[in-house]
Amino acid sequence: MADGVGVVETETAVVFDGDRPLVLDSGAALARVEVAYETYGELAAAGDNAIFVCHALSGDAHAAGFHPGADRPGWWDNMIGPGRPLDTDRYFVICANVLGGCKGTTGPATADPATGRPYGLGFPLLAVRDLVTVHRALLERLGVGRLLAAIGGSLGGMQALQWALDHPGDLGGALVIAASGRLSAQNIAFSAVAREAIMRDPDFAGGDYYGRDRRPDAGLALARMIGHITYLSEESMRAKFGRRIQDAPEPRYGFDVDFEVESYLHYQGQSFVERFDANTYLYLSRTMDYFDPFADPVAVQRQVAAGDTRYLVLSFNSDWRYSTDHAREIAAELRLAGAPVTFREISAPHGHDSFLMPNPDYHRTVAAFVDRLASEA
Amino acid sequence: MADGVGVVETETAVVFDGDRPLVLDSGAALARVEVAYETYGELAAAGDNAIFVCHALSGDAHAAGFHPGADRPGWWDNMIGPGRPLDTDRYFVICANVLGGCKGTTGPATADPATGRPYGLGFPLLAVRDLVTVHRALLERLGVGRLLAAIGGSLGGMQALQWALDHPGDLGGALVIAASGRLSAQNIAFSAVAREAIMRDPDFAGGDYYGRDRRPDAGLALARMIGHITYLSEESMRAKFGRRIQDAPEPRYGFDVDFEVESYLHYQGQSFVERFDANTYLYLSRTMDYFDPFADPVAVQRQVAAGDTRYLVLSFNSDWRYSTDHAREIAAELRLAGAPVTFREISAPHGHDSFLMPNPDYHRTVAAFVDRLASEA
Repeated sequence: MADGVGVVETETAVVFDGDRPLVLDSGAALARVEVAYETYGELAAAGDNAIFVCHALSGDAHAAGFHPGADRPGWWDNMIGPGRPLDTDRYFVICANVLGGCKGTTGPATADPATGRPYGLGFPLLAVRDLVTVHRALLERLGVGRLLAAIGGSLGGMQALQWALDHPGDLGGALVIAASGRLSAQNIAFSAVAREAIMRDPDFAGGDYYGRDRRPDAGLALARMIGHITYLSEESMRAKFGRRIQDAPEPRYGFDVDFEVESYLHYQGQSFVERFDANTYLYLSRTMDYFDPFADPVAVQRQVAAGDTRYLVLSFNSDWRYSTDHAREIAAELRLAGAPVTFREISAPHGHDSFLMPNPDYHRTVAAFVDRLASEA
Repeated sequence: MADGVGVVETETAVVFDGDRPLVLDSGAALARVEVAYETYGELAAAGDNAIFVCHALSGDAHAAGFHPGADRPGWWDNMIGPGRPLDTDRYFVICANVLGGCKGTTGPATADPATGRPYGLGFPLLAVRDLVTVHRALLERLGVGRLLAAIGGSLGGMQALQWALDHPGDLGGALVIAASGRLSAQNIAFSAVAREAIMRDPDFAGGDYYGRDRRPDAGLALARMIGHITYLSEESMRAKFGRRIQDAPEPRYGFDVDFEVESYLHYQGQSFVERFDANTYLYLSRTMDYFDPFADPVAVQRQVAAGDTRYLVLSFNSDWRYSTDHAREIAAELRLAGAPVTFREISAPHGHDSFLMPNPDYHRTVAAFVDRLASEA
């Protein structure tokens, strides 16, 4: 495989400000919205080769390449780069931290211009379509018109789906991967317990923990640990850890970390705390709970008829967070509304996290779909 | 169906004391062990009609009938009573709170005779065979010899299994229901996160919270909520709650309880805190993590050959906490060791909790197996 996109840096742009506030789906407004983003490859003179990458709950704008001095690349480096499925020799790829995020885009940790203090839980609740609104404002700033495609996994797939429905004509294709069009009771339950872990942490302080000595690290770590179990398949956990004891031939018999899987979860929880904001976890997970783009089938039919977006809906057979049933339901709803949909279940062992992993069949499927969009454009 | 066993009361017996301490599998000792238990039906003159019911993590000795003034019966009332699968017109049924429990049997909340203060985390770690040792001591006190059967679901099934293996000749039959002979990495992971929720609660105070103003209620409620999601099937949650909003036609859009499934989990967490001790949760869940009765296949072969116990291994097709794979593995290990095993997967929608629910096929299977044991006795 060719080298990746090389060294990149995250840039920022103010996309709403002053006399142009962002009015949200709820009616609430944000006076100022800044967005952190990265781009890879070059925009063609015709402007017809842009692909927008939408990230998942814990993602950020740094999808590919290396930040200066970093030893690990962006979160989707295996997907984006020269010769990779989102081929930066051919396509101009953009990724932005979502609204409500904590990696450079305006979110609950941002200072409210009205008070000068972080929003905390004063930040308005967001709909997936609000995240899309901000992505579109960024594209306007970058001078990018119609996109060849929007693509994303999990919450990223939800953004691509909502984008295609709300803005007919914006997208040549929408690649909706490992996503759900309507969270199940179990999905909501897991997210609810993760949020409870954060909100019951005494250091949460009603979301107003910025600038204090203590943050709700214990709660956020727990939320991540709960989430992480649901991102992996039982099979991949068995293969990766089994019942092996951490750094010892025999169990220590106690309540400290003893099994390897415990050590792994601890590490996941701890490293998440160091890079993520608890309020963002609350906001984005709640946004997913309420996501329901097919609530009004008549409206969806109208939205689909007004556009020409092709859909690729992908699931992974070992994903039990958003199982293939969720993907089938998305595909069925879209087809019912008259949209051209390709649906595929990919065989991959890594559960929900499979969308982040390199997998020849998966990568071939994405590459072929995007290339077809390009050849038709 | 005939009436149940009527009004019952929990009794207690001191089964280890003074010059007869309980020596545990780990080598640690407990100077005094008291056991809470209930019995239903009458012991036959020949003493050959006794069935021991082993309870699961959150269970207790009150398996059937009503405590005076109570409006809800014991946790397995649908299984135990006149004309029910464990027919109290024919069988003498005993259930006891397990060692390490918090409902009358010696556990971490009990005062250590050496200090006069509750053990807390000074309580020794327990193996499943220690729980069995205490059950056997209780039977000795009650004048019950060989049992017609031991039966239990989840941790209860583990006790029945360990009992049959460790004490050949004790049991005519072992009914091992919704159990595992070896927790998977995912099983351990869920339990580990539940324990983390308790231990990271500032009110946990290293397990020494007895007699204080505050107990680790937030952590214990979270542990229960996490556990509860894994006890239900995705399908049963969908059927029971779907995406319905609690007490309102429209979502409220916020972080408070909004979906019915959130309200349900809250209630489960809160009611658990009122009836259960956090340290017991730690001890019993850790006991399950370490459970590994088939670790030495040669020993198992010897154990099986020395006894004449018939095994009934049951699973439920919607149980993903201890799926049918776990039951099949138990059955396979037992057969490999030469034991007579009947294995059945029951079709039931309620996930792991199915073992607690009335289900004609399930109840018929248990009744037929027990009746056969009785006719052969």
